Amino acid sequence: MAVDSMTGTTTTEARTPTGGADGPDFERIRTGLLGSWRDIRLAARARTLDPALHRRDDLLVADHRARVTAQLQVLLDSGAVRLPFPEAFGGTGDAGGNLVAFEELVTADPSLQIKAGVQWGLFAAAILHLGTRYHHDHFLADAIELQTFGGFAMTETGHGSDVASIATTATYDPAAQEFVIDTPFRAAWKDYIGNAAVDARAAVVFAQLITQGERQGVHAFFVPIRDEAGAFLPGVGGEDDGPKSGLNGVDNGRLHFSAVRVPRTNLLNRYGDVAPDGTYSSPIASQGRRFFTMLGTLVQGRVSLAGAANTGAKVALQIALTYAEQRRQFAGADGREEVLLDYPRHQRRLLTRLAGVYAATYAQDELLLDFHRVFTGEHDTDESRQELENFAAAHKAESTWHALDTIQECREACGGAGFLAENRFGQLHADLDVYATFEGDNTVLLQLVGKRLLTQYGKRLKSAGRAGSARIVAGQLVGSAAASAGLTALAQRVADGGTAAGASRSLRDPAVQEAILTERVAVAVAEIAPALRSRPGASAAELAARFGEHQHALIEAARAEARLRQWKAFTRAVERETHAPTKAVLALVRDVFALQTIERELGWYLVRRRLSVSRAKAVTRLLDSLVRRMRPHALDLVEAFGYEQGHLRAAISSGAEGRRQAEAIAATR
Amino acid sequence: MAVDSMTGTTTTEARTPTGGADGPDFERIRTGLLGSWRDIRLAARARTLDPALHRRDDLLVADHRARVTAQLQVLLDSGAVRLPFPEAFGGTGDAGGNLVAFEELVTADPSLQIKAGVQWGLFAAAILHLGTRYHHDHFLADAIELQTFGGFAMTETGHGSDVASIATTATYDPAAQEFVIDTPFRAAWKDYIGNAAVDARAAVVFAQLITQGERQGVHAFFVPIRDEAGAFLPGVGGEDDGPKSGLNGVDNGRLHFSAVRVPRTNLLNRYGDVAPDGTYSSPIASQGRRFFTMLGTLVQGRVSLAGAANTGAKVALQIALTYAEQRRQFAGADGREEVLLDYPRHQRRLLTRLAGVYAATYAQDELLLDFHRVFTGEHDTDESRQELENFAAAHKAESTWHALDTIQECREACGGAGFLAENRFGQLHADLDVYATFEGDNTVLLQLVGKRLLTQYGKRLKSAGRAGSARIVAGQLVGSAAASAGLTALAQRVADGGTAAGASRSLRDPAVQEAILTERVAVAVAEIAPALRSRPGASAAELAARFGEHQHALIEAARAEARLRQWKAFTRAVERETHAPTKAVLALVRDVFALQTIERELGWYLVRRRLSVSRAKAVTRLLDSLVRRMRPHALDLVEAFGYEQGHLRAAISSGAEGRRQAEAIAATR
Repeated sequence: MAVDSMTGTTTTEARTPTGGADGPDFERIRTGLLGSWRDIRLAARARTLDPALHRRDDLLVADHRARVTAQLQVLLDSGAVRLPFPEAFGGTGDAGGNLVAFEELVTADPSLQIKAGVQWGLFAAAILHLGTRYHHDHFLADAIELQTFGGFAMTETGHGSDVASIATTATYDPAAQEFVIDTPFRAAWKDYIGNAAVDARAAVVFAQLITQGERQGVHAFFVPIRDEAGAFLPGVGGEDDGPKSGLNGVDNGRLHFSAVRVPRTNLLNRYGDVAPDGTYSSPIASQGRRFFTMLGTLVQGRVSLAGAANTGAKVALQIALTYAEQRRQFAGADGREEVLLDYPRHQRRLLTRLAGVYAATYAQDELLLDFHRVFTGEHDTDESRQELENFAAAHKAESTWHALDTIQECREACGGAGFLAENRFGQLHADLDVYATFEGDNTVLLQLVGKRLLTQYGKRLKSAGRAGSARIVAGQLVGSAAASAGLTALAQRVADGGTAAGASRSLRDPAVQEAILTERVAVAVAEIAPALRSRPGASAAELAARFGEHQHALIEAARAEARLRQWKAFTRAVERETHAPTKAVLALVRDVFALQTIERELGWYLVRRRLSVSRAKAVTRLLDSLVRRMRPHALDLVEAFGYEQGHLRAAISSGAEGRRQAEAIAATR
Repeated sequence: MAVDSMTGTTTTEARTPTGGADGPDFERIRTGLLGSWRDIRLAARARTLDPALHRRDDLLVADHRARVTAQLQVLLDSGAVRLPFPEAFGGTGDAGGNLVAFEELVTADPSLQIKAGVQWGLFAAAILHLGTRYHHDHFLADAIELQTFGGFAMTETGHGSDVASIATTATYDPAAQEFVIDTPFRAAWKDYIGNAAVDARAAVVFAQLITQGERQGVHAFFVPIRDEAGAFLPGVGGEDDGPKSGLNGVDNGRLHFSAVRVPRTNLLNRYGDVAPDGTYSSPIASQGRRFFTMLGTLVQGRVSLAGAANTGAKVALQIALTYAEQRRQFAGADGREEVLLDYPRHQRRLLTRLAGVYAATYAQDELLLDFHRVFTGEHDTDESRQELENFAAAHKAESTWHALDTIQECREACGGAGFLAENRFGQLHADLDVYATFEGDNTVLLQLVGKRLLTQYGKRLKSAGRAGSARIVAGQLVGSAAASAGLTALAQRVADGGTAAGASRSLRDPAVQEAILTERVAVAVAEIAPALRSRPGASAAELAARFGEHQHALIEAARAEARLRQWKAFTRAVERETHAPTKAVLALVRDVFALQTIERELGWYLVRRRLSVSRAKAVTRLLDSLVRRMRPHALDLVEAFGYEQGHLRAAISSGAEGRRQAEAIAATR
């Protein structure tokens, strides 16, 4: 039995893992889940055990903000935040390791994570990545060492997702060799800017660069905004965004600029520069490509938020599963009350989500490796950057939504206890809520992923030539490609031997899973693409309307793509495992992930006859049975994430419920 | 156009509804949505405009609690809270009207709603419904008039959903003619009790009644717990539940009792009494039935929470749809930025949920009428009570979940603005979160609904006799009943004329919708029932295991039943409407509700061949097109709920975004 709730003394450490000597080795799983930067991750987790970094529930906004501001100094003193910066600034240029440490801050307080992200991951990182030697020499050390708190002033009240359309201007005045920053109307005010309400003394301000009467697109400028005492500098104004539904340790605010002048050299000029006489120059000819290159540095935020949200989901699941293993309600067949996790519905609710968190964890590590290779220059090409941005967009959307859904389900699965602040679910949900819409709104990100899928499909058709492309189209649309993978209804019946057991067997075959999950994406794209192809005489309005008609389907295809990527990462982790019983349990969890993904889309598959009815029936039955088989390992699997009570800090994760149950059982015996 | 965001001056009042003179009359819709207690509802809404009743975002827990406690006096002064009580106590016995007024408190502060619910809906109502003349004479006036704040001490740390198993005891001592109340161990402490942390001076305590050495089951006792100064009385102790994820205006706490003595007459003895000598008597012979009769008074809480959650969803939708009509992002085909609500995905996200809120609103009114008839004695039979409890359980689960989902979607649909406290989504979600698990955990409630479906099915079989029951079983399982409703695949093709247009036409036919939605419930029940039938020699453990295997399917069937009931209520509202253009728009919204319900279950229908592939394909296509047709009416439809800016109190519901957009457009023209 996974937990001895009879004695109630069980702790994470004292418990005997399931399976015994011949069973799965959860230490191996734990090591795998720690990922490619294990030591950095463990060190970060050791740091977040420090109570000085923990969120307190008894503070008003101003006090919470002050506490988090002070916590930044603790992080700085630890040295960890210097990691991604060049050696001259105390770092090692470890881009990936830095994000790993950053993800872990969520267990202390998501506000701390975001405030640190604003200061080092956005403000200082923009100086590093968008600036050149001059800016590194003059501004970077102060930003890293917290001598200058700074904002990342990109978003405006009027423009969030569509950054290219921001309205703040930076007009070059060659006489003074200065840029003049202006926010021409209310919607152009910078908004939701972290650090802007109180702490920021400067900001990296994004504005439309205008020189010699011409607009050169969005560029970033280093702009001092407050004096040392905290008063706005002349021409700068702003207001507090006030309390938020979460993350109240971060002082978000608005900024506006009226003829604010900064030296020409305050333009962060890596991707575009203005000479003293006003001549514009850039190493990137296309304005569009230049814009996306500058914005590319934002990918770091998406990668880290995906991991951070998943960390929140892990914490929530460990709390809820610990409770579910100890809490009893309603007498079972033997008259004794049943443990919640023995209820199949409870298993369905929590264990399918546990499988999702596993998938997201393995995918996150692959994403971190890709990110690291690009940002250290190890493998930095146009293609690898685009691929990274695409993967990050898909994974960020899927992981943040999955985390919110998981935390909410955990909250409900713990009933009244789940609503008490001491058990953390509500605050985690409130804080992580905005992860679904900031650093790229999930819906907008998925639309980008969907558009890239269409582009790639178009390229494939083009390179295949007329005959080849006809084959591809026919294959996707009438199912002959699917048939070759054994997937049309008839072929499935043959492969399954027409029996329920056969269907279940083949549904656990990774090759079959991959074919089914791949088909979900490929067929959707092949269905949408022809409708969006520009035809002679089609007006822009007509094309836009046609795109609109397929927007929902395209976004759903992109979500399927995100799940497919997670499935692949999970499957690679299963394949890496060499210890048979351990491999078996990982494969089991992977299968739960695959089956729930397919079950959710059953209607889609059946309408297109991409799954036979008998195989579709087998999906739900098999998923139920796999979840049942996961159940004995539930606590081992969630504890393999490696969090301690000092990270969970929930009353019901402490064994308290087990002790209460033991006392009650002893008293009523 | 629904909103003139060009001028930005538009308000709710000034806007011209869509459709013109020949179009739908949204005043008629508004009147219908106000329901059967229109005047009481309007008066309640007028009260909640009072700023003294509004939540403030800048208070710590203690101050929020004190504010809400003071607000109760405002409600009392208005007289409204006396409504459900007998004339002698200033009321009119208007059970339904009382709940209507209560639902509306959500717009002021959900904490106020719950605190009022604890004091009048639980504490005072328990004295009224479970007590008799003596208790009314001695305790009721003080409870109603806030002279005695009280708790409703039913739930224990160890038992929430399974009330029958609570462990607190009340042992009768004939020598002293007193009951002795004890909480024998930690899990028996009363927990999550509103008013218990601070305000309560007394509590209605539920305990296992023991007299003459025998247990008579759960009964309620009036127990003083604190003196006038607020100190616990001897033997009583407790602690504060501390901060919660929401509802922090309510002081929830724990209570424990050690040999606390109350007079024999403090037993609320309507359904069970103890004579001075210790002899137990009850008008209800069966202990089980007695228990359920006493608990039946709890149905009031479920009815009101369902309505209150739906009120929260209305507020959120009106805020989000107002913003979606004014907010622009990304240039459209004409180069001008598009209004968010013109994006089909945005329509999908918000308008399907708007349809859900309409359905819940009409169902809520029917539930209130049922409740009123039972609780005023107008139609109070065993059968009508059971039916009421069943309807309330199904509707409470569906409405509370739907509200949480809607508020979350609205939050995300407003991006960064949605995360600011000034726009209310986060706090509404945090406060209403617990509605899904208190006053009956949604999952447990749906299981009860599912079990009743099984029982009714069993009864039908039994009354049909052997031959008849075989016909029923065969009908459900092989589809002949369905066929007679035109629903098997072949019959559908015939009815649809084999064309896409035909399929769409028939899917808008209410008779077809009803048949499809009914089938989802009936077939599921017919599938589950045989597996659960007790067979000779089957052990309790075997039966429990078999029940477990079908728990998930049973709960899903119960959700389908809840949606079916909402659909029926909506359809009756459509049928009542006599003004053709108004009827048409209501039917449109009803169809969106029906189609999204079917779309969600497409896999279920297809696996069972209960929908033909061509009709299933038509579902998504038709839903997309109906949502598009709803779009021009979106703001009219949401404003028809009748809330004013004083209820919404969101920065982005005020027209601010429209003014910003107008200014930006003027400046960049």
